[in-house]
Amino acid sequence: MSARPLTDFRRLSINDATTKVQWTLEEEIRGYAELGIPGISIWRDKLAECGVAKAAALLREHRMTVTGLCRGGMFPAATAAQRQAAIEDNWRAIDDAAALEAQCLVLVVGGLPPGSRDIIGARQMVLDGLHAIVEHARQAGMPLAIEPLHPMYAADRACVNSMAQANDLCDAVGQGVGIALDVFHVWWDPMLEAEIRRAGKSRLLAFHICDWLVPMQDMLLDRGMMGDGVIDIPLIRGWVEYAGYAGFHEVEIFSAHHWWKKPAPEVLEVCKARYLSVV
Amino acid sequence: MSARPLTDFRRLSINDATTKVQWTLEEEIRGYAELGIPGISIWRDKLAECGVAKAAALLREHRMTVTGLCRGGMFPAATAAQRQAAIEDNWRAIDDAAALEAQCLVLVVGGLPPGSRDIIGARQMVLDGLHAIVEHARQAGMPLAIEPLHPMYAADRACVNSMAQANDLCDAVGQGVGIALDVFHVWWDPMLEAEIRRAGKSRLLAFHICDWLVPMQDMLLDRGMMGDGVIDIPLIRGWVEYAGYAGFHEVEIFSAHHWWKKPAPEVLEVCKARYLSVV
Repeated sequence: MSARPLTDFRRLSINDATTKVQWTLEEEIRGYAELGIPGISIWRDKLAECGVAKAAALLREHRMTVTGLCRGGMFPAATAAQRQAAIEDNWRAIDDAAALEAQCLVLVVGGLPPGSRDIIGARQMVLDGLHAIVEHARQAGMPLAIEPLHPMYAADRACVNSMAQANDLCDAVGQGVGIALDVFHVWWDPMLEAEIRRAGKSRLLAFHICDWLVPMQDMLLDRGMMGDGVIDIPLIRGWVEYAGYAGFHEVEIFSAHHWWKKPAPEVLEVCKARYLSVV
Repeated sequence: MSARPLTDFRRLSINDATTKVQWTLEEEIRGYAELGIPGISIWRDKLAECGVAKAAALLREHRMTVTGLCRGGMFPAATAAQRQAAIEDNWRAIDDAAALEAQCLVLVVGGLPPGSRDIIGARQMVLDGLHAIVEHARQAGMPLAIEPLHPMYAADRACVNSMAQANDLCDAVGQGVGIALDVFHVWWDPMLEAEIRRAGKSRLLAFHICDWLVPMQDMLLDRGMMGDGVIDIPLIRGWVEYAGYAGFHEVEIFSAHHWWKKPAPEVLEVCKARYLSVV
């Protein structure tokens, strides 16, 4: 059931967090293009530094596909005013994603509000937030990609922690909402294959890859290069492709201890080599 | 739906890992008893240091209930010989648990064999291992308590990561196997209430408590005192009790950075105070 080996870079995208320490967004767009990488996913802090109009022009110049803008979401908050501010920030993120012609806006939905122990309530706030932004997204033609995060981030980053939950939210909110699947977050889930099939082609909006290192130095910033950890990436890619996904494979590696310390071109060459050998 | 507040210590147990750095097993048995704590859960390394016969005598002398022996399991391995050695080690653990009249043998089932990326295969090895030890456990009258561990331990400690999986294994193996539920491992699970109900009184063999700290310094050794983190313990205790559980509440705190550095009596007094105020 494993996917067939990849033989070219036509569907390779790099999430720009992978080189965030080494390069500006302009350097990333030029550098990725120079190395024959046709896709990029962009974080909003880097986009803000560059400016949306300049970034859009650079992307067109280099014929780069934006496989996602990271990130909207972060819906749960202690007060109604804060929740409304989050919704308005999501509207702006949708507009920015549309300006870049991104394939989706990735949503990291948020964890518990400060001081809260009510994860069920936080999940309700996520559903409410999605309802509050989906019409804006539909009008902008910008798909919203809910990214289930690993359960170790349930408290502080995202209270949506499985493909099943993401599918349930898609069922509830309807057209315009799909899923960004990152192997790092979901590789352990016994229901993964079934829930990928349940999501199907229409909901699978992005496929993120990296690896799970053993041991892991840091819960947030020690993600591994593909092949250096324990995730059977070809198996999961096979499940995703069997479900109809034919989009990009987006490398996203947060690595304060290793890859962020190396020159960006070296990191990208390793990404390309591993993409052909182990993804 | 939250459970009613606890008003006495009749169902309080301390897992001896909570004071493993400060005390020997003999000191733990005497010390817990002196503080009016009627239950203890024991790790096998501490039991080996003390000796089974001496430990059993001390437990009788102090009328302590052993709410669990930690731990059997660790079934997946690279070779058949290694898997057989694990099975035989589990047989010895069952005998030791019986000698202590423990309420259950806790099973941490094991993660991926070294070099493996095959979590589906590892899960099959766990099922095979359970089948290989359950008859010995039945004859010894020793319930086996599968402990689902947090998904962040799927690679290196336990590839059973949800109550649903533990329930599935109980369905497959049958009489003699149940579940040890630790709030730290399962608090995030959207299916938790439903799977606790599915487990029911007959399968719920142990209820472990501590807290999930935000931020967490260390994926293994930074568990929090009840009340210092984000877990709604009374809510989960309410679900467990509604399902029929009437056993002990076992405090298990691995805390290299904080509680292991404090005198054991101080740690235990805090456990008792928090037990009445936030559990």
